[in-house]
Amino acid sequence: MTGTTGEADFAWMRQALDEARRASERDEVPVGAVLVGPEGRAFADHNRTREASDPTAHAEMRVIRAAAERSGDWRLLDHTLYVTLEPCAMCAGAIVLARIPRVVFAAPDPKAGMCGSLENLVQDARLNHRVELVAGLLEEASAELLRGFFVARRGGRDGGAAGVSGGTDAP
Amino acid sequence: MTGTTGEADFAWMRQALDEARRASERDEVPVGAVLVGPEGRAFADHNRTREASDPTAHAEMRVIRAAAERSGDWRLLDHTLYVTLEPCAMCAGAIVLARIPRVVFAAPDPKAGMCGSLENLVQDARLNHRVELVAGLLEEASAELLRGFFVARRGGRDGGAAGVSGGTDAP
Repeated sequence: MTGTTGEADFAWMRQALDEARRASERDEVPVGAVLVGPEGRAFADHNRTREASDPTAHAEMRVIRAAAERSGDWRLLDHTLYVTLEPCAMCAGAIVLARIPRVVFAAPDPKAGMCGSLENLVQDARLNHRVELVAGLLEEASAELLRGFFVARRGGRDGGAAGVSGGTDAP
Repeated sequence: MTGTTGEADFAWMRQALDEARRASERDEVPVGAVLVGPEGRAFADHNRTREASDPTAHAEMRVIRAAAERSGDWRLLDHTLYVTLEPCAMCAGAIVLARIPRVVFAAPDPKAGMCGSLENLVQDARLNHRVELVAGLLEEASAELLRGFFVARRGGRDGGAAGVSGGTDAP
């Protein structure tokens, strides 16, 4: 794990993992997110790309949109985003646009992760916002959920191979 | 301009520019997009980040979500996306997730563009989808709209300096 964490971080990530489990129960790729704002106000949701027929309905996007709508401000200063899988390009870009100052993720995504795996868009000095990043918090719990999901989807054909998000055609 | 185009491309981009003008009239950063699907079915919209208090409400995201919702499929195969400004990381990521096969943009964005300026995420061989890209179609018309918008917003202080999207705090 990289980055500095406290007990509260573990508690929020466990809530994000609960969201990921809910996604799995609905046959969605099991990724969950919690966006925690000032005074502990939190928005929790999970990946809903299938349910909503929306390629942009990743867990991170859903909590960012919910928090911005509630606050009436597109800047999510003083927020921390907890997510069970390393954000992709879309979500990393949204994190930068929303000026979220801190991101904590569980499992890395070697196939599409843009917070250190393929690129690091949330700490890119060329963009107008940089994020404090914690990687790998409760990584194993998240990776196990993802592995189990893809093994079940493939009927056990090739479970355990490749990365946690590998081989799926899901968005 | 790079990439192969036909007359229809110019017509669709002119429609995207009309959307950008509508954004400007509403004090939104003037970016417009048109997503054209099979049989000429098209979704047109503009940047609405202020109106919706939503940092993810870029023009591209709005037409992608609208088209996916209408079709009931998150894969937007056989679609071309026309947009007046080079897509950012978020929008480039969404384009890849939605499997859009062709993107045509007008003005490059040297500050945040991820389709050739800072990176090229829509033609990244490590991701599971690559896009045919046309850059610079009706570039001047779009750049002029953006310059005019930022000059007006700054009261003419430093208009004409830096890139078209430079210096704004808008998402």
